[in-house]
Amino acid sequence: MTHDDAIRLFAKTLQNLERWMDKAAEHATAKSFEADVLAQARLAPDAYDFVRQVQSACDQAKYAAAYLGGKQPPSHPDTEKTFAELRQRIQKCLSFLETVRPSDLAGAEDRKVAPPWLGGRWLRGDDYLLHVAIPNFFFHVTMAYAILRHNGVVLGKMDFIGSMPVKEA
Amino acid sequence: MTHDDAIRLFAKTLQNLERWMDKAAEHATAKSFEADVLAQARLAPDAYDFVRQVQSACDQAKYAAAYLGGKQPPSHPDTEKTFAELRQRIQKCLSFLETVRPSDLAGAEDRKVAPPWLGGRWLRGDDYLLHVAIPNFFFHVTMAYAILRHNGVVLGKMDFIGSMPVKEA
Repeated sequence: MTHDDAIRLFAKTLQNLERWMDKAAEHATAKSFEADVLAQARLAPDAYDFVRQVQSACDQAKYAAAYLGGKQPPSHPDTEKTFAELRQRIQKCLSFLETVRPSDLAGAEDRKVAPPWLGGRWLRGDDYLLHVAIPNFFFHVTMAYAILRHNGVVLGKMDFIGSMPVKEA
Repeated sequence: MTHDDAIRLFAKTLQNLERWMDKAAEHATAKSFEADVLAQARLAPDAYDFVRQVQSACDQAKYAAAYLGGKQPPSHPDTEKTFAELRQRIQKCLSFLETVRPSDLAGAEDRKVAPPWLGGRWLRGDDYLLHVAIPNFFFHVTMAYAILRHNGVVLGKMDFIGSMPVKEA
């Protein structure tokens, strides 16, 4: 599994997330409430709300692509409040992920990744992907999914997984 | 990132999950309720409860290790009802993961993985890891975490992530 595979998996999953938001909007319409009510929903008073879960998922994908691809991460301020704004945030993230090509990611396993929150310490590229990017990315998208599910949105596991490159026997 | 790296990540994360259960038990004691009440907790009436989220996370790790390592997956019947039984389930899973060695996983990327639920169709080993095992594994552990978090257990992101092989500057 290459680093490029992981970045494409993040992109696919963010596109899945957009479809969960479509289903959330349908649910809101059916129940006659504003979908943006769900943007502020959270599972516990001191847990991130849906907006911040989506922002965080986008950031995990963005920083992984930037750090592992040797690119400057673009600034995406956390100003979103509505579903419409979150969709734009996801699109900005996906556009950036597109600019990081397999050639940029070649040798990423040995790249020295020193995000600010490590305070000068660092992780090998492979370790960053494995111990930081993948768990954190899936943590935040699953928490976003869980918030919608807890609020009655009709979602199932295949919505979470999305398309798979299945081969015929 | 090798297939062995992914299996070790699953093992580390299942060990993290055991520590969330320790914290859940402490929370239950502090609030004078039985921790096993949380075993049946769920985020929505038609969502898996904590027991089934843990069983599913274990199974995703077990089947990934078996399919990618060319081993027969051991049978672990879904009979658990209590935290104590779930801990045993996690230990059984971890013991199996230990038996799958890097040499078993060499060449896993091109292995033909045909789980029963694909009805005769199949996925390349790399695609199985990327599109099935990793998303599903992290889905179930995060849902287990979310159930505890929603029920007041004091957990933070570092409990989710666990140890990281950080290097000094």
